[in-house]
Amino acid sequence: MIAGVIGATGYAGAEVVRLLAGHPQVTGLVLGSVSFEGDRMENQYLNFQTAVSASLESPAKVIEKSGVVFAALPHGAGESYAQAAVKAGVSFIDLSADYRFDDDEDTFTAWYGIPYRFPALRARSVYGLPEMNRAKIRARAKEGPVIIGNPGCYPTGASLGAIPALVKGIAGEGAIIIDAASGVTGGGRELSRSFHYAECADSVGPYKTGSHRHTPEIARNFQMAAGRPVPVIFTPHLAPMNRGILSTIYMPLADPWRVFSGTPGAVRPPNAAVEEQAAHIRDMYAAYYRDEPFIRILPPGAAAASGRVRQSNFCDISIHLDQAGSTLIVVTAIDNMMKGAAGQAVQNMNIILGYGEKEGLEHIPALF
Amino acid sequence: MIAGVIGATGYAGAEVVRLLAGHPQVTGLVLGSVSFEGDRMENQYLNFQTAVSASLESPAKVIEKSGVVFAALPHGAGESYAQAAVKAGVSFIDLSADYRFDDDEDTFTAWYGIPYRFPALRARSVYGLPEMNRAKIRARAKEGPVIIGNPGCYPTGASLGAIPALVKGIAGEGAIIIDAASGVTGGGRELSRSFHYAECADSVGPYKTGSHRHTPEIARNFQMAAGRPVPVIFTPHLAPMNRGILSTIYMPLADPWRVFSGTPGAVRPPNAAVEEQAAHIRDMYAAYYRDEPFIRILPPGAAAASGRVRQSNFCDISIHLDQAGSTLIVVTAIDNMMKGAAGQAVQNMNIILGYGEKEGLEHIPALF
Amino acid sequence: MIAGVIGATGYAGAEVVRLLAGHPQVTGLVLGSVSFEGDRMENQYLNFQTAVSASLESPAKVIEKSGVVFAALPHGAGESYAQAAVKAGVSFIDLSADYRFDDDEDTFTAWYGIPYRFPALRARSVYGLPEMNRAKIRARAKEGPVIIGNPGCYPTGASLGAIPALVKGIAGEGAIIIDAASGVTGGGRELSRSFHYAECADSVGPYKTGSHRHTPEIARNFQMAAGRPVPVIFTPHLAPMNRGILSTIYMPLADPWRVFSGTPGAVRPPNAAVEEQAAHIRDMYAAYYRDEPFIRILPPGAAAASGRVRQSNFCDISIHLDQAGSTLIVVTAIDNMMKGAAGQAVQNMNIILGYGEKEGLEHIPALF
Amino acid sequence: MIAGVIGATGYAGAEVVRLLAGHPQVTGLVLGSVSFEGDRMENQYLNFQTAVSASLESPAKVIEKSGVVFAALPHGAGESYAQAAVKAGVSFIDLSADYRFDDDEDTFTAWYGIPYRFPALRARSVYGLPEMNRAKIRARAKEGPVIIGNPGCYPTGASLGAIPALVKGIAGEGAIIIDAASGVTGGGRELSRSFHYAECADSVGPYKTGSHRHTPEIARNFQMAAGRPVPVIFTPHLAPMNRGILSTIYMPLADPWRVFSGTPGAVRPPNAAVEEQAAHIRDMYAAYYRDEPFIRILPPGAAAASGRVRQSNFCDISIHLDQAGSTLIVVTAIDNMMKGAAGQAVQNMNIILGYGEKEGLEHIPALF
Repeated sequence: MIAGVIGATGYAGAEVVRLLAGHPQVTGLVLGSVSFEGDRMENQYLNFQTAVSASLESPAKVIEKSGVVFAALPHGAGESYAQAAVKAGVSFIDLSADYRFDDDEDTFTAWYGIPYRFPALRARSVYGLPEMNRAKIRARAKEGPVIIGNPGCYPTGASLGAIPALVKGIAGEGAIIIDAASGVTGGGRELSRSFHYAECADSVGPYKTGSHRHTPEIARNFQMAAGRPVPVIFTPHLAPMNRGILSTIYMPLADPWRVFSGTPGAVRPPNAAVEEQAAHIRDMYAAYYRDEPFIRILPPGAAAASGRVRQSNFCDISIHLDQAGSTLIVVTAIDNMMKGAAGQAVQNMNIILGYGEKEGLEHIPALF
Repeated sequence: MIAGVIGATGYAGAEVVRLLAGHPQVTGLVLGSVSFEGDRMENQYLNFQTAVSASLESPAKVIEKSGVVFAALPHGAGESYAQAAVKAGVSFIDLSADYRFDDDEDTFTAWYGIPYRFPALRARSVYGLPEMNRAKIRARAKEGPVIIGNPGCYPTGASLGAIPALVKGIAGEGAIIIDAASGVTGGGRELSRSFHYAECADSVGPYKTGSHRHTPEIARNFQMAAGRPVPVIFTPHLAPMNRGILSTIYMPLADPWRVFSGTPGAVRPPNAAVEEQAAHIRDMYAAYYRDEPFIRILPPGAAAASGRVRQSNFCDISIHLDQAGSTLIVVTAIDNMMKGAAGQAVQNMNIILGYGEKEGLEHIPALF
Repeated sequence: MIAGVIGATGYAGAEVVRLLAGHPQVTGLVLGSVSFEGDRMENQYLNFQTAVSASLESPAKVIEKSGVVFAALPHGAGESYAQAAVKAGVSFIDLSADYRFDDDEDTFTAWYGIPYRFPALRARSVYGLPEMNRAKIRARAKEGPVIIGNPGCYPTGASLGAIPALVKGIAGEGAIIIDAASGVTGGGRELSRSFHYAECADSVGPYKTGSHRHTPEIARNFQMAAGRPVPVIFTPHLAPMNRGILSTIYMPLADPWRVFSGTPGAVRPPNAAVEEQAAHIRDMYAAYYRDEPFIRILPPGAAAASGRVRQSNFCDISIHLDQAGSTLIVVTAIDNMMKGAAGQAVQNMNIILGYGEKEGLEHIPALF
Repeated sequence: MIAGVIGATGYAGAEVVRLLAGHPQVTGLVLGSVSFEGDRMENQYLNFQTAVSASLESPAKVIEKSGVVFAALPHGAGESYAQAAVKAGVSFIDLSADYRFDDDEDTFTAWYGIPYRFPALRARSVYGLPEMNRAKIRARAKEGPVIIGNPGCYPTGASLGAIPALVKGIAGEGAIIIDAASGVTGGGRELSRSFHYAECADSVGPYKTGSHRHTPEIARNFQMAAGRPVPVIFTPHLAPMNRGILSTIYMPLADPWRVFSGTPGAVRPPNAAVEEQAAHIRDMYAAYYRDEPFIRILPPGAAAASGRVRQSNFCDISIHLDQAGSTLIVVTAIDNMMKGAAGQAVQNMNIILGYGEKEGLEHIPALF
C-alpha cells in the first residue's frame, strides 16, 4: 500500500508521516506540501534523517500515486483534494474540521466562517471516532472511497470520557463542563507569540474561554450518545508541555445515581459511599469499553495524566466523584498528536482498509 | 523590627525569609528549624549566599528574639508555638491550616484528622485573606497579639475569583466548580515520587479529585460571601511549572444575569450579547476591587495566566462567559508561593503592624 | 525467546522492559525486582497498563526462566546473578559498570570503590559498544554465554563522537575536553534533592566537575581507538529535560589537519577555509560509519540536538571547527535511556542472538 | 531622575523597564518604540498591568525628556540616537554590540558586517563591564555624557569567570574553551523557529558552533586581563529554560600551578591534592572579587547553577580542577537578562550617576 500525505510538513502531517513510515502495511510514502514543494521531508525535519526519505510533491501528484490519502491542511483548504481523491477512487482521511459535521453545514459555517464548497461529498464522509462510529466507518468503506472527518483533539478526549455516562444514563440533566489542558503542539508549526518559548513556558492559562470552536463538535457527539441535546461548557488551557490533552469532565449525576440526597455539590468529607459508587461506575466504563484496543480504564486510586500516554494512541480514563456524590468527574488523557490527530487518522486507515486496528500504533508509552 | 520564621527551610518558609530579607521595615531575621537546627540558612539554600546570613535556631529562641513570628510547619505542628508567641505578646502568622477554620473544629478535624490542642487560641486568631477580612484583621490586631490563619493557596485563588460574584448576587444557585492547576512547589521540599522531575515534567494530571482538603476552606469563604451555603466542587491538577496557581471557576449565573433564556449551557456561536454581559460583570469586579493593591482585573480579550504573576503578590482575574451566556467563568492567576503563601503572610504582617500594605511586596512580575 | 530483566522497576530496567515488550523476537518476559517482588510491573508503571502484564519475581526465578537476562542494578549488585546466568548457560547483559573495564580491576576499584567478586567472569565478558566492538561481541557469543558490559551513557556519546577522529589521526596530541549535558532520567528513579522538580527545572548546572566516574571509561575507549593514552577532561551537566545526552567534544587537530598555522584557537572571523575542512572531516566520519544503522552524520549547517533523537536508538553527530581551524568540535546527541542504556542493551542482545541489529529499535524520533 | 528606554518592547528593553520601574532613584519613565509607537507598554506586556503605565513614544521624544537613556535595539540601529543623546548632554547606555569594541572598528565590522557610522562617538564610549572597567566608567562619566557599550551576555559570564585567573597568571598558554548554555530569552522576542516551544523544549543543542560573534568580545576581554592575546574557543548552546547562562570555562593551568607533572589531562582518580589546589585558587578568586557586590564565589563542593541566580544581578562562580590537576574549570552562572543585559545596564547607570551600585538590583534570587 502506497500512502500519501498532503500537508506533510505541518506538525500533524509530520506525525502521520512518522507513523506511516513505521507501519507494517505501508510499502511506500508520497508526501505533498504546497509551501515546501521541491524540498525534501528530511530537511524540514532533521529528526527524520535516514528514517524517512521523500521529496515534497504537489497535492495532485500525491493523489495520483497513492492508495490512500491523508490531508493535514487548514480548515477549508482540502475540499478540492477530497473531491479529486474520491474521483480517483481513493479514500481521503481529513484531519481538518471540514468533514466533522456531516451535512450540518449551518453549524460548521457558524463556527468556521466558511461554507461547504462540495456539499455532495458529505454523502461519502463519516465522522471518524472509531469508538463511536466504527460500524458506520466500515459500512461506508464497503461502498467505495470514503472521506474520514478525523475528530478534533479536544472532542476526542471529551467524547471518550463522556459517552458511556451519556449512553448509560449515568449523566443527568444539566450542563457538562469540560476543562481541558493541551500541550503546545496543538498550536501547530506556524510561528506565533502564544507558542514562543519564553511566553508559554512555566505558565498555564486558558484561551478562547467559553467560545472555542471544538465546542459544537463536542456537543454533537454528546447529543448522539445521549439521544438528547446536551449543554456543554468547554474551556481549553495551554500547558507547558509538548504533547498531550488532559480533560476533566464534570457531569451531574442522574438522580438514581446520586449517592446522597440534598444539594448537589454540598461539601462533605471524603467517604466510602462515594468511593463505592465511583467503583461501580468505573466497572460500567470498563465493560462499555471492553473490546476497545486503545481505551484504558485506570484502577481506583489512580488518575489519568497526559505524560503516561505520550507518543501512544491510548486514551486513559479515570473515574471520580465529588465528595457529595452528585457529580461524576471523568478525567481523560490522550496524546493530542496521536489519538488526538495522527494516531486516530491511522486507526481510521486501518479500519477502512481492513488492517488490524492496532497495526502501526503499538508504541508503548514510556513514563518520561 | 526583628522578624522570626519557624520552619524556615521548607519552601514556604524560605520564601518568607526571602521576602523579609528584602523588606524595608525588617531590621533583622531570626530563623528556626527543627530538622536543621545548628546549620546555616545559606547552606540549605545556596541561592541565598551573601544575601541572607543566619544560623538555624530552635523555635523557642525564635519566639524569644522576634517582634513577629511566622510559622511554616506541617498542620498541627505549630499550635504550641502559637501559644508561646501569644504568651510572649508576639503576633503569630501561621501558614498551616491550623487557624483557617476559626472555631469550627469539627470541619477542621473531619478533613485534617487532628483536634484543636489549644481551642482558646481561636479567640485571638483571624482568617488572613485581606481582601475579605482586612477590617477584622486590623480590629483583632488592635486588641493585642494576633494569630493569622494564612489562607491555603487554592482557597486564595478560588475565593478572590468568586467573592464579588457571590456578594453581588451575580452567581446563582447551583454548584460552583473550581478546576485549578498548581506548580510543583505546592508539594513542598519533601521528596516524593510525585515531584521527582521525570515523573511530573511534560505532563498534566489531577490529584485528590473531588476530595482535596482545601475544599471546605473554599466553601467556607464562599458561604461568607454569599450569605448562604454554596456547593463546591474542586479539582486540583499538577502542572509542569515551578510556581503558580491557575483557577478556572465556573459559576451558574443568577437568573437576572443570564443573557438568554433557555437551557443553561446550550451551545451557541460566540456572540456580542455575551461579550457585553461579560464587560458589564468585568466592570463590577473592577469596582469591587478598586482599592485592592494586589488585584488586577484584566482587560477584555485577555485571559489570566500564571506566568504573568510569577514572583509577585498579584492576583490576576479575567472574566468570561460561556457562549450561551448562562455561566460565569472567572479565571484567576496567583503565584502559589506569594499570594498563595509567603507573600500573603507578609501582607498580613504589614496590616497587623501598620506598615504600608505593599511594603516588601513591590516586585513587578517579568513575563518570563 | 523468553527475555528476563532483573532490576525491572528502575528507570533503565523499565525502559528495557518497554523495548522487549515491543520486540518482534521476544515471545515472553520475566521480570525481577528485589524491592518490589510480588507486586506487578504495571502497578509500578501505570503507563504500562494493558501493554505489559507481569508479576515481579526473584532474580533467581528470572534466570531460571529466561533465554537471555538483562540486569539494571546498582554497581556491584549483579555479579552473583551474572555468575548464575553463565552457569545456567544464559547470556547476561549488564547495564551497571561492573563489566565495562574487562580485566582492569585496578581502575574499576579506584573509581567505584569495590573489587571484582568473581574475577573469572571477565573471561566471558565483553564491552558492549557495538560500533567499536561488534566483531568481538559476536566472537565471544559464539563461544557460549556471554556477559555484556553495557557502556555508560556519557561514554557512549563521547566515544561515538571521538573514535573516528582518533582512529584516523585527525585528533592530535593534547587533552580532549568533553562537555556534556544530560536529562534528569540519568539520575534514576531513586528520590533525591537533585532531581526534585523545583530544584532542577529551569536551570542548568554541572556536577562532579572534573571527577565523574565515567571519565576512565571514556579514556579507555579513546586509548583503544588512538592506540595511545589520551588525556581526557570531562564535565557532565544536568539539563531540565527528561531524556537525552548532548556531548560537545573538543579535540585539538593533528598538525596536518590544521587549517592555519599560528596559535591554535586564535580568534578569526568565520571563513570558508574552515568550512571546507569541516566538510572534509564530515565526509570522513560519514565514510567511517557508513554501515552503522544507528549513527547519523548531520549535513553542513545542522547541529546535533538531543530532542531530535528522543526515544530512538540513534546517535546524531555534527562536525564543526573553531574559526581558527585548530580544534575539531564534534557534537553528539543520544537518548540517554536508549543508545545510552536500554536501547544499546537490546542492540547487544540482537547481536548476540543473531537477530537483525535494528529489530525492536526501529522507533523513528518525533521532533517533539 | 527621568529615565528613558528606546526599544522598550523587546525582551531586554522590557527588562530594563521592569528594573527602572522599581528603582528608588527613578522618578519617571519615558518609553520608546519604533514598532509599537502609540500603543501602551502595559498592553504589550500584560504582566506590567497596574505596575507600569506608559505610552510608547518616538526615540526623539525619549531623548528629549530623559536624564539618561537606555537603548535595546538591533546592532547598528542606535548610533544616531547615541549621537543625539550625547548632543543633548545625556548619557546613553547601549545594550547592542555597537560600543563593545571601542575604536577597533575592524573587528566589529568583520563580525557584525556594518561599519561605524559616527566613529567620533567612540571618544565618549566605554565598555561597561564594571568588574573590569569601573574606574574607567567613572572617569569617563566625570567628563560629560558617556556612552556605555553594555557587554554581551556570554562575554559577561565568560569574562567574570576567567579574569582573575588571567590577571593572576593562574591560566597558562593554550586556548581557553568556553562551553556555555543559555536560556531562550537570549533569542529575544522576535518569532523564530528556533524558539517555537515545541522545537526547543526538552532538548539541548549548540548553535553557531565555533563561530558565534561574542567570540571576539570574549577574546578582547581576556587579552586585556592577561596582557597578551589569548586563544578562545566558544560554543553556545540553547537550553530549555527561560533565563540564565551557565558557562563552563576550561583554562590550562600555568606550569607553577599544575598539581602533577606529566601529561595534562591524564586520567587519575579524584584526589586530595587536586582539591587543595582548587581551594587555593578559590581563595584567590574570593580575594580578587572581595569588594564586588554581585560576585559570589561558591564554597567547596558546590557548583554554580543558573537557576540559583534567576532574576538577580549576581554572578555565581564555582572553582574546580580536573582530576589530573592540569586544567582549571571555572563555572559561572548569570541571569542572561540581568547581569547579562538589563541588570548590568542599570548597574552601569548607577555608576555613571553616582548612585549606590546595588540600588534597584537588590532582588534576592529564589531557588525556583
